[in-house]
Amino acid sequence: MCMNDTSYLPEGQFGKKIPEGDDRERLVCTDCGFINYQNPKIVVGSVPVWQGKILLCKRAIEPRKGYWTLPAGFMEQGETVEEGVLREAFEEATVKLKLNGMLATYSVPRISQVHIFFRSNLVDGKFEAGIESAEVKLFAWDDIPWDDLAFPTVHWALNHAREVWDKDSFVPFSNPDGNQMMF
Amino acid sequence: MCMNDTSYLPEGQFGKKIPEGDDRERLVCTDCGFINYQNPKIVVGSVPVWQGKILLCKRAIEPRKGYWTLPAGFMEQGETVEEGVLREAFEEATVKLKLNGMLATYSVPRISQVHIFFRSNLVDGKFEAGIESAEVKLFAWDDIPWDDLAFPTVHWALNHAREVWDKDSFVPFSNPDGNQMMF
Repeated sequence: MCMNDTSYLPEGQFGKKIPEGDDRERLVCTDCGFINYQNPKIVVGSVPVWQGKILLCKRAIEPRKGYWTLPAGFMEQGETVEEGVLREAFEEATVKLKLNGMLATYSVPRISQVHIFFRSNLVDGKFEAGIESAEVKLFAWDDIPWDDLAFPTVHWALNHAREVWDKDSFVPFSNPDGNQMMF
Repeated sequence: MCMNDTSYLPEGQFGKKIPEGDDRERLVCTDCGFINYQNPKIVVGSVPVWQGKILLCKRAIEPRKGYWTLPAGFMEQGETVEEGVLREAFEEATVKLKLNGMLATYSVPRISQVHIFFRSNLVDGKFEAGIESAEVKLFAWDDIPWDDLAFPTVHWALNHAREVWDKDSFVPFSNPDGNQMMF
């Protein structure tokens, strides 16, 4: 029994096979030929600002539990990039944001991810740790815990946000030079 | 028997269930608890230019067989966004490109896709239909088959490319106003 429908996984056996007209191995159901494509996932997040300070979340879950991160996470089915950024911020920091331009698109090929960051501003200055955060706090630039950041792209996004701090409009960043493969 | 490994699909039964700490239904293996997350897919492409003309491909496959498109396709595991753009162009039009800045990031929530387009220039002016294309051709702006374009984002990307035609640097576009849900 196998439902040939991408919204539900088939129950047949899967084997690696190059489908006709394709050029690489895919997971193909031996019962019905359903192809389960694996593709990169999108992480959406932002650098939230309130009165000149940056909002960071201390992770309450693995990976990198106890380290500081920007509110960000996997984009979900049926939402836009912008909706995903706002949803993640609310989930992790119970914070309402207004987006302020795309900051960067980073490729993380080793783990097949693309991280899209925006600049953002807190709407009313209110926030509170969500279920995935142990603590949420505003940091002045000089107080950011640079040695305790959770992920390289958090580091990159913070540096890039600082670089365009006083600019209203700018060309968004991609990976810093030579950092395509650093993960 | 079920391999708890995202690179290989488990063979157990899947059921819809909200995992602990999550807030929405996922496909969870009833044997081992492996969660098969479904997330939006990324389409990467570009608007390739040679001597003031735009390169388009006539699709030889469904969906939208016979309609014209920009070289673009699903980003693959283990590559960067930029590598994906270049790979797709070579597969569909046997063409070598040099990228010329990110043009746009469009969300297509109805089908859970994000389309990332760059500007690009042909390196040597050579091209030839790849296996997914019936024909590849250079078009002056006035000759573009606007009524026979394959997808709305192709239309958007062409219009946006025209808007910044003479600009060296610019802020990339997102969905045209009011077109968040038009798919």
